[in-house]
Amino acid sequence: VFVVDWDPGDAEKGGYDHFMMKEMVEQPKAMMEALMSRCCENGASFAGLKLNAEMMKKINRIQIVACGTAYHAGMVGKYYFEKFARISVETEAASEYRYKNPIVDENTLLIVISQSGETADTLAAIRLAKERGAWVLAVTNVVGSSIAREADDVIYTNAGPEIAVASTKAYVTQVGCMMLLASFLGNLNGKMKKEDAARICHGLMMTPGLIDKALETQDVIKAFADKNYQISDLFYMGRGVDLYTSMEGSLKLKEISYIHSEAYAAGELKHGPIALIEDGTIVVAVCTQENVFEKMLSNIKEVKARGAHVLAIVQAGHEDIASEVDEVWVIPEMDDDITAIPTIVYLQLLAYYLAVARGCDVDKPKNLAKSVTVE
Amino acid sequence: VFVVDWDPGDAEKGGYDHFMMKEMVEQPKAMMEALMSRCCENGASFAGLKLNAEMMKKINRIQIVACGTAYHAGMVGKYYFEKFARISVETEAASEYRYKNPIVDENTLLIVISQSGETADTLAAIRLAKERGAWVLAVTNVVGSSIAREADDVIYTNAGPEIAVASTKAYVTQVGCMMLLASFLGNLNGKMKKEDAARICHGLMMTPGLIDKALETQDVIKAFADKNYQISDLFYMGRGVDLYTSMEGSLKLKEISYIHSEAYAAGELKHGPIALIEDGTIVVAVCTQENVFEKMLSNIKEVKARGAHVLAIVQAGHEDIASEVDEVWVIPEMDDDITAIPTIVYLQLLAYYLAVARGCDVDKPKNLAKSVTVE
Repeated sequence: VFVVDWDPGDAEKGGYDHFMMKEMVEQPKAMMEALMSRCCENGASFAGLKLNAEMMKKINRIQIVACGTAYHAGMVGKYYFEKFARISVETEAASEYRYKNPIVDENTLLIVISQSGETADTLAAIRLAKERGAWVLAVTNVVGSSIAREADDVIYTNAGPEIAVASTKAYVTQVGCMMLLASFLGNLNGKMKKEDAARICHGLMMTPGLIDKALETQDVIKAFADKNYQISDLFYMGRGVDLYTSMEGSLKLKEISYIHSEAYAAGELKHGPIALIEDGTIVVAVCTQENVFEKMLSNIKEVKARGAHVLAIVQAGHEDIASEVDEVWVIPEMDDDITAIPTIVYLQLLAYYLAVARGCDVDKPKNLAKSVTVE
Repeated sequence: VFVVDWDPGDAEKGGYDHFMMKEMVEQPKAMMEALMSRCCENGASFAGLKLNAEMMKKINRIQIVACGTAYHAGMVGKYYFEKFARISVETEAASEYRYKNPIVDENTLLIVISQSGETADTLAAIRLAKERGAWVLAVTNVVGSSIAREADDVIYTNAGPEIAVASTKAYVTQVGCMMLLASFLGNLNGKMKKEDAARICHGLMMTPGLIDKALETQDVIKAFADKNYQISDLFYMGRGVDLYTSMEGSLKLKEISYIHSEAYAAGELKHGPIALIEDGTIVVAVCTQENVFEKMLSNIKEVKARGAHVLAIVQAGHEDIASEVDEVWVIPEMDDDITAIPTIVYLQLLAYYLAVARGCDVDKPKNLAKSVTVE
C-alpha cells in the first residue's frame, strides 16, 4: 500500500510552504495581468470604463474609501492623484466615513478599493454615497462580488485568487491600478504632460521584472530575519510615497508576526515617537525618493544618535549610504514614481521571514479573517 | 544657618513635582482665556480677524498643516470643519506638505497650528503657500513668534507659557480654537444653524469646569497606573472624534513613558492590528460619542474575545458598560461635540502617572525637545 503523505490543501500551494509565499511569488504575473492593455504609449486606458472627460467636468470632489491594506493603496492613490492630475483627494477608512455624515453629493466621485469586494464597511459606504447621487468606481479583485455589482464602474485588479490572510498580490495590483487611474485622470483634465503619462506607463511595465528582482533577494532578507526575529518592536519611516509603503510594510508585519511595529512620517519622529528609540531598536528607513533623500539621511542620523539599528532601502546609486547605517538593501534603479510597487515586496518578505522565524502560522494569523464581511 | 533646600527652578513649578502637572492643572484657566470674548450667543467671534465672508467666497480649498500634538488638534479641526461648516479640509503633517508640491493657490486658506510659533517645517509650509498666493491663518500660543509674524491672520491660543516638553494646555486650547473656528466658518457660509452655533459656544464654556472634574479623578487614574505600569504595549481605539483624542493620548504616553502605544480607528482593528492583542493587553476604548456607541461596544467585544484588558471611557449614563469591560472611567455628561477637550485630560493624566510610576523624567523625556526648530 502506498500512502500519500500530503494534505490536499498543500497541493494548491504549488510546492510552497505557505499560500502567502506562493502569492508573493505570483506578483510579477499578477502585476502583468493588472497592467495588460491598460498601459499605453499615451497613458492609461481602461476598456469599458464609463467615467469620461465629460463626466469629470462636473466632479468637484474625489474620495477614496477602503479598509486595512486597501486603505494603504488608497493613500498611494491620493498621492498620485495630486501629483499627476493635481486633484485633491481625501482617503478615509470606510468605518469612519460611513458614520460621520460625509460631504458627498452628485458632484462627488467615490473610489472604493476592496480585494474581496465584500468588505462590509466599504459596501455600506457605497450605498450611502449612491443614495446621495455620487458616482462610485470600485477597484476590486473579485468579479461579480457585491461591491462590483453595486458600483457604477469597476476596475478589476486581475490578481487572481488570494488565499493568505495577509494581502500581497492584491495590494501591488491595487497600487498599480491607482497609479494608472491617476494618470488616466491627469490625461482627462489635461494636467499631466503626455511625456509624463508615457513615462509612468513605461515605468509600470517594468514592475513585474522589478518584483522578480526583489524576490531574488530572499536569502538576504531571510538572513536578516533569522538574526533579528526576537525583537518585540520595529519602526518604519519614510517621506512622500515611501511613507505609505512603510505603513503597509508595518501592517504586514503586525498581521503575521505579532511584532508591534509602527510606521512614521520621518519628519514627525522628533515630535514624539523618537522617545521610543533605544539601543538596538530596528528602524527600517525607506529611502527611494530622490527629492527627500537628504532629508531622510538627516532623520537616519537622528535615530542613529539614539542607538537605533538602521536598515535602509535605497535605489542603486546610493550604496554609499552604507557608511551611515547598519544594513542596506539596494533595489534596482527605477523611476521614482513607481517605487511603491517593488519596494513593498521587500517589506512583505521581511514580514514573512520574521514570522516564520518566530514560528507563526503565516497563512492563518490568530484573530484575523481574510475578508471582513461583518461590521 | 538656615539652608534653603530647593532648586530655584522648582519655584516656578508652583509646588508641583513637574511642570507637566502644573500645566495640566492650569488647563481650566488656559481654556477660559482661549474662549474669553470669543464664545458668543450667536456663535464664535474673533476680534481682529481679517478673514471674512467676502474673502471666504473665493476660498475653494482649506488645508490644515501642523506637527506632532498640533497635528492632532488639526485632525479635530478637520472633523468639525466638515461637521459644522460642511467644508472639506485636508490635514497634513508639515514635513510631508512642504516637500510634495502641494496643491495650493490664491484660492486656498492654509491654517497652521504651532504652540511655539517657531516649528521649522510649519514655517516652511507658510512660506511656500504664501509664495503661491494663499491666505495663511496661524493658530499659535506665542505672541510675536515667527509664525505669528509671517501669517496673514493670527488666532492666539492664550494658554500661557508651556514649559514641559509634552504639550497639554496648549493642545486643549488649540482644539478649542479649532472648534470655534469651525463654528465661525459655519456662520460665515450659512451652513451651521444658529441654534447649533449657540449650542457649541455653550458647550465650550462648560469645558473649564469639565477639565476640573477630570483633574479631580487623579486618584483613580494614579491607582490604575500604579497597578499597570509594567506593560510594554498599550492600545487606544475610538471612532469619530474619539479617534483623534486616542491618537493624542497615545502620543502623550509615548513621549513621556516610552511605552509603545498606538491608536486605531476601532473599525480598522480587525483589518490587521487586532493580531497584536494578547491575554492581558490593555486597550483603552474611548466611547464618548452616542452615534457610534453600539459600534464601539462590538469592537470592545472583539478585543475582549482575544483576551484584552479593556478600560472604557464613557459619559455618565453609560455606567452599565461595566459588565462588558474590566474598568470604566465615567466622565460627566456633556455635549458630544465638545468631548475632545475634557477627555484628553484623562489620557494626559494616564500618561503622566504611568511615566511617574516607571520613574521617567516627565518634564524632559529623552530624545525630545520642546519646540522643533530644526528640520
